[in-house]
Amino acid sequence: MFIAEKGLKIPVVDVDLTNREQHGADFAMVNPHRTVPALELDDGTCLTTSTGICHYLDFYYPEPPLLGRTSAQRGRVVDLDWRVEQEGFMAVGEAFRNKAKSFANNALTGKHAYSQIDSLVERGKTRTEHFFDWLDELLQDNEYLAGEFFSLADITALATVDFSKYIKVQPKEHHTSLQRWHNTVSARPSARL
Amino acid sequence: MFIAEKGLKIPVVDVDLTNREQHGADFAMVNPHRTVPALELDDGTCLTTSTGICHYLDFYYPEPPLLGRTSAQRGRVVDLDWRVEQEGFMAVGEAFRNKAKSFANNALTGKHAYSQIDSLVERGKTRTEHFFDWLDELLQDNEYLAGEFFSLADITALATVDFSKYIKVQPKEHHTSLQRWHNTVSARPSARL
Repeated sequence: MFIAEKGLKIPVVDVDLTNREQHGADFAMVNPHRTVPALELDDGTCLTTSTGICHYLDFYYPEPPLLGRTSAQRGRVVDLDWRVEQEGFMAVGEAFRNKAKSFANNALTGKHAYSQIDSLVERGKTRTEHFFDWLDELLQDNEYLAGEFFSLADITALATVDFSKYIKVQPKEHHTSLQRWHNTVSARPSARL
Repeated sequence: MFIAEKGLKIPVVDVDLTNREQHGADFAMVNPHRTVPALELDDGTCLTTSTGICHYLDFYYPEPPLLGRTSAQRGRVVDLDWRVEQEGFMAVGEAFRNKAKSFANNALTGKHAYSQIDSLVERGKTRTEHFFDWLDELLQDNEYLAGEFFSLADITALATVDFSKYIKVQPKEHHTSLQRWHNTVSARPSARL
């Protein structure tokens, strides 16, 4: 979504996660951490986190800005993006990966085997509910997360809300601001790819 | 440490965490998330994450750069800082907060009460050991985490290594590159504050 918002064309190689292709020898040559996404640069180096990739692309292709134009906007976007990822995306991931059978020995992403922990399923769901409450409150006074402009924080939040259906926790009916925002950002062409 | 490296003088108000001052009404007015640090800006808004604060300060006061000068450096620093925080700092925190009695009902930072989960203590320690292995390997070919220059990723990694003594996991003797780097960054004046 970030790449589409920038209007960039970057060659994409799909990695078949359902068949654990990220754990194979070929992909380990690209990214030894065995996580997706990974962005290979022309000099052969590789960025292996969504956050790192987005900050790289925003620095290299500043328009349209997705991390804010001013220092105050930059601070707010990065601050919110961090909180959305930690309290939202990670919470959903915690509930999801500690339950699904296919992650029995991979409760965390990456090359190391970690067993599932049952109590993290409920904790992840509770955290997600708290996250939606906060997000709805934030959006009562703001069109987008960081204010009047669309940013990376909205992308991370949209991914989180859409991901949350897999743990059967969704925004509630009374989260009207969150619902309004979700409809708005879901309608962007970049969200339909 | 980031503020000191920038040569900035920012008025500081201590928050007494041992007496749970961050959960009191006064601090909740500053930061409703009830976490530290928090940076109040002149317009009354508040940044409430270390990552957001550092990105704000770096944008506002670019010199010396602690997030890289070029797009490639920016990508690498943010990429590494994210990984260090997620795989290092969060791992140590997981082991620490799920054990210490004072966090019985606050296994996660913030205003919501989450019970401790015993199995996260061992998982956090194991993750920290894996993290030190990776860090040592990275530093075999690099003076600092991102290469030839000191950055935010080094600050986050130093905080992680120093924090890890509280969970009784420390770099091992054979982690000679990690030890070399730790001595170097610990000797910076900003690390002594």
